[in-house]
Amino acid sequence: FFGVEGTYSQQAMELFFGESGYEAYSLPKFTEVMEAVERGDADYGVIPIENSSTGGITDLYDHINDYDIYIVGEQIVKIEHALLGLPESTFNDIRFVYSHEQGISQCGSFFEENPYIKPIRISSTAEGARLVVQNNDMSYASIASKRAADIYGLKVLRSCLNEQDNNRTRIVIISSDRKYVKNSKKISISFETKHESGALYKILSHFYHNNLNLEKIESRPIPERNWDYRFFVDIAGNLSMDGVKKALSAINKHANNVNILGNY
Amino acid sequence: FFGVEGTYSQQAMELFFGESGYEAYSLPKFTEVMEAVERGDADYGVIPIENSSTGGITDLYDHINDYDIYIVGEQIVKIEHALLGLPESTFNDIRFVYSHEQGISQCGSFFEENPYIKPIRISSTAEGARLVVQNNDMSYASIASKRAADIYGLKVLRSCLNEQDNNRTRIVIISSDRKYVKNSKKISISFETKHESGALYKILSHFYHNNLNLEKIESRPIPERNWDYRFFVDIAGNLSMDGVKKALSAINKHANNVNILGNY
Repeated sequence: FFGVEGTYSQQAMELFFGESGYEAYSLPKFTEVMEAVERGDADYGVIPIENSSTGGITDLYDHINDYDIYIVGEQIVKIEHALLGLPESTFNDIRFVYSHEQGISQCGSFFEENPYIKPIRISSTAEGARLVVQNNDMSYASIASKRAADIYGLKVLRSCLNEQDNNRTRIVIISSDRKYVKNSKKISISFETKHESGALYKILSHFYHNNLNLEKIESRPIPERNWDYRFFVDIAGNLSMDGVKKALSAINKHANNVNILGNY
Repeated sequence: FFGVEGTYSQQAMELFFGESGYEAYSLPKFTEVMEAVERGDADYGVIPIENSSTGGITDLYDHINDYDIYIVGEQIVKIEHALLGLPESTFNDIRFVYSHEQGISQCGSFFEENPYIKPIRISSTAEGARLVVQNNDMSYASIASKRAADIYGLKVLRSCLNEQDNNRTRIVIISSDRKYVKNSKKISISFETKHESGALYKILSHFYHNNLNLEKIESRPIPERNWDYRFFVDIAGNLSMDGVKKALSAINKHANNVNILGNY
């Protein structure tokens, strides 16, 4: 799973696979998790893909097409950020707060209300908790889950720090086996639009006329080309449905590099 | 302009308005620039909106609808990141590198090739250059423009650090006056799709059938609602064209909160 002990990805893994019956380990970068799964070091990988208040996790979208991996499941996790300090710290001691970029942006109003507290961006929310223990300095805290407080022996100085009560992260399970789960309900695909007028509109028309519901659309620039976009689309359905087969074959006319990322 | 002296936003401002004939000052956050323009403290604001290799600058999209401001112009700036150190530093001294999140992600392979150099995320590329001077420690450098080296008296230790040769940032000029520039070529709008099947498809159909070219589409989640999206679309054209009038009036049937962000 992505991150270190105590990340939301670990929580998602335990919700999806149960708490025991397998071995688990973590890697600090999205690309390292995807590599480990592609190489076969791990059967599955667990990576966050989208947050309900801050949006697509762009790093994942930018790299998922570089690896021979598939999405085989998803797990929604409720995000409840807390401020975690050393057991002997009080709220008034805190001057520096470690967290992931997303944790900091989800707690924007906390930093506005406490301008003397400086955010420090690091690679994951739980890594911040680990650094608080390592620093052993009462002026440092981290924004992470309450679960991370248990794991690292930290104290919850403030709870419910995120602005949105219904803040959730969608976490995906990846595998190197192209497993299309039977009765699966969602198909994730990526494609690039051809340089022709209305290309995206024509692609969406094939979903619409085959009664397929568009659940999500995200655009990301293609790094080597200026202002050209790759689209990531989730549609409701599974690959054995006639309408899905028809739509996917039709969009090839208006799209390049159509890639089925998973059906789960 | 966004950032501190020496940011790419300042460079865009000078390309757009010329180098003299007005007073300029900088603010460290996107929202502060938008606030200053809304209040009338500044006639114009200059903020980056999109990078050709890392994509939409989500902070801007998430807040632009909260302020009574309009996009009145845009400027493309070529991004050429360099590694800037103290005049007495050499490349081998460097262990820590300050930059904005986007600067760090645009120079990903530099950090992979030099794993003993740690990136430190801060609010803007030029702010990193300022911190190198302030720290006065030979092991610190920053990733910023060569222009920032001149402004802060730093030395260029490595140039052309970004992976993409054609890395460009689109920077927009905002105003509190709803100025629709005559002969303007681009319209930026935002809208939310209604909960009905094919809503986005139907909206795009009105652009297509009125011969309007879609130049860009970006989706962002609406913070208060789980997995509901607001779309940001750029279309070629100007508001006096009949096709534009027809399309904008028609999309109201399938979209909520249609907002014309600018015509420039």
